Amino acid sequence: MSLDAVVRERRLSKLRGAMDSADLDVVAIGAGATLLYLTGGTYALMERPTVLIIPIEGEMRMILPALEANSWSRLSFPARPVIWQDTDGYDGAFAEATSGLTARRVGVEGQRMRVFESRALIRHLPEAEIVDAHAEISSIRVRKEQEEIEALRRAIDLSETALDRTLQAIKIGMSEKVIHRLLLAHMFDTGADALAFQPIVISGAQSASPHASAGNYVPKRGETLLFDFGVASGGYNADITRTVFVGDPQQEARDFYNTVYEANRLGREAVCPGMTANTLDNTVLAFLEKSRFGKYVLHKTGHGLGLDVHEAPQIMRGNAAALEEGMVFTIEPGLYIPGVHGVRIEDDVVVTRTGGESLTRFPRELLVVG
Amino acid sequence: MSLDAVVRERRLSKLRGAMDSADLDVVAIGAGATLLYLTGGTYALMERPTVLIIPIEGEMRMILPALEANSWSRLSFPARPVIWQDTDGYDGAFAEATSGLTARRVGVEGQRMRVFESRALIRHLPEAEIVDAHAEISSIRVRKEQEEIEALRRAIDLSETALDRTLQAIKIGMSEKVIHRLLLAHMFDTGADALAFQPIVISGAQSASPHASAGNYVPKRGETLLFDFGVASGGYNADITRTVFVGDPQQEARDFYNTVYEANRLGREAVCPGMTANTLDNTVLAFLEKSRFGKYVLHKTGHGLGLDVHEAPQIMRGNAAALEEGMVFTIEPGLYIPGVHGVRIEDDVVVTRTGGESLTRFPRELLVVG
Repeated sequence: MSLDAVVRERRLSKLRGAMDSADLDVVAIGAGATLLYLTGGTYALMERPTVLIIPIEGEMRMILPALEANSWSRLSFPARPVIWQDTDGYDGAFAEATSGLTARRVGVEGQRMRVFESRALIRHLPEAEIVDAHAEISSIRVRKEQEEIEALRRAIDLSETALDRTLQAIKIGMSEKVIHRLLLAHMFDTGADALAFQPIVISGAQSASPHASAGNYVPKRGETLLFDFGVASGGYNADITRTVFVGDPQQEARDFYNTVYEANRLGREAVCPGMTANTLDNTVLAFLEKSRFGKYVLHKTGHGLGLDVHEAPQIMRGNAAALEEGMVFTIEPGLYIPGVHGVRIEDDVVVTRTGGESLTRFPRELLVVG
Repeated sequence: MSLDAVVRERRLSKLRGAMDSADLDVVAIGAGATLLYLTGGTYALMERPTVLIIPIEGEMRMILPALEANSWSRLSFPARPVIWQDTDGYDGAFAEATSGLTARRVGVEGQRMRVFESRALIRHLPEAEIVDAHAEISSIRVRKEQEEIEALRRAIDLSETALDRTLQAIKIGMSEKVIHRLLLAHMFDTGADALAFQPIVISGAQSASPHASAGNYVPKRGETLLFDFGVASGGYNADITRTVFVGDPQQEARDFYNTVYEANRLGREAVCPGMTANTLDNTVLAFLEKSRFGKYVLHKTGHGLGLDVHEAPQIMRGNAAALEEGMVFTIEPGLYIPGVHGVRIEDDVVVTRTGGESLTRFPRELLVVG
């Protein structure tokens, strides 16, 4: 989808600011969220390099496989397309797209750019240093514009509707896989255009592995059932986790759940501009660690959310970055007892001028289904 | 899912053979299809490096974020886990996992391994050369085992059922997005556990852009409607394209369709062990190029298919690799007239002892729906 010219110029100017402060004279952006953010175009991360070359001044160039040329031209993005055919390979396009560039330090997003693309750059810019400037480049996306927050809100609303309908349809005796399919059907029924990621629907002992996937296990009465899922809408991703119980849980499980619930609440309520990501993670983790379930912590409090499902800011000890208005990230404390169960409660929170707002509004209180 | 020990040892021994012929003393495998193939484990390609280090002899080590440790232990894979916590970062794990290694040439899959992972390797193996051995490493997956072909067949069958039900439900006046949602619903209804990729449902002028995505456009009578989609089952991906017409097309469009149809048939029938990928692509492309629509070719004939949607062998001019029994790839000739329409017909073909068998059986003849 073609970007409005004003939005595009604003974003390019953010990028040039980031290049300036990271002392980069060129950046190379491969397929993914930042390319989408700058150009409006979505490209697959497969065997065909699709790379936008942006010098700090002068002509931008876009390395494109021939089969994307038509889609690209519709974006009206002011870069010269350098198109390569499968039959010829991409090396000539890298040569042409880098010709005449004075490049001393070329920034790439190290968590996205792959070794073979980076090597193609080095072959044609042998004098340049390739710099992993992931943090600096992706920082341009970290403070969401109003339209982006609205897109996230839409993705989250659709996701919550799907979860609500799924929970209402669950019956005791359904397996994880059956519930997984129910959830998927409801996700697309709401009008979502894509999944943010493959949904996780796990129960009982499986829920102690945060990223396990649905199997044939049928949760028993009183066991946990964990949903980690989200739809994407207009490129923006929801990422929500709720853990429910299939039939009444025992008191120990209730205490376990409520410890995570309390950590989630503490985290959401602590959010405010100026606080560091380190402090926020520490607030949440210290509470979990001091509880009687303290040894079951496995991960940080959260991650940024937007065109990527995991992006800056990482809500993590050691990250001294300050939270700023417009940042969106997850607050997702969890506790996991190997062989028994796990509980995670994940909200998507935006930093406002004076505090934080959870875009996720789905109830968090202990819920029994089935 | 834990691999059978016999299967695992066979696959590891294929890898060691590939290392030997590429003169690699270590390989480092990140999250993705090859890691799944070797270990049975599925890991996300996000900000947390998950890397298996395999020396040509001696102890294997697995760099794991703490939240994956429990899933990993269930795989019973004979590598020493080196677990890192979000709070500490992954650098220490790379140090420990590479300690004591004699590494001269470290192979990575350049189309998968990202720059930040590769740099972490370099920091801790400063004497070693990091070699992009994508072709050699991924070659171990290129000849499918019988169980793999059965898994592909299952994914393809489910996909065909979903397409069949979708086509029956289409009515004139439905938009691309509405049809896209229908297809998604049917894909999950069949019992698929995941999408191979975000399905493409495009019509009319949009179908001239091979990778465009569904919009609000309502195809008019006589226009093309292109589906490029597939479900994944047990990790194996279907990848099927069919182009139908919404109401009777004109003669010119029929001729255009039938040119692609003929190219697809030629390709499928030409497949045999010993033929090079170059020859197969050339057979298909030469036919298209000599037709009166010759200037509308945009891409190669196909790509390998398995645990990755795009993998070796590339069915492409310039690829001198010979087809071998057990290889699975797409035959997907297409023609695209900018501003008018595109047609692509894509089958998934396995090389047999004496020829080729299309695992896709969905009819290819010009079909009118609505």
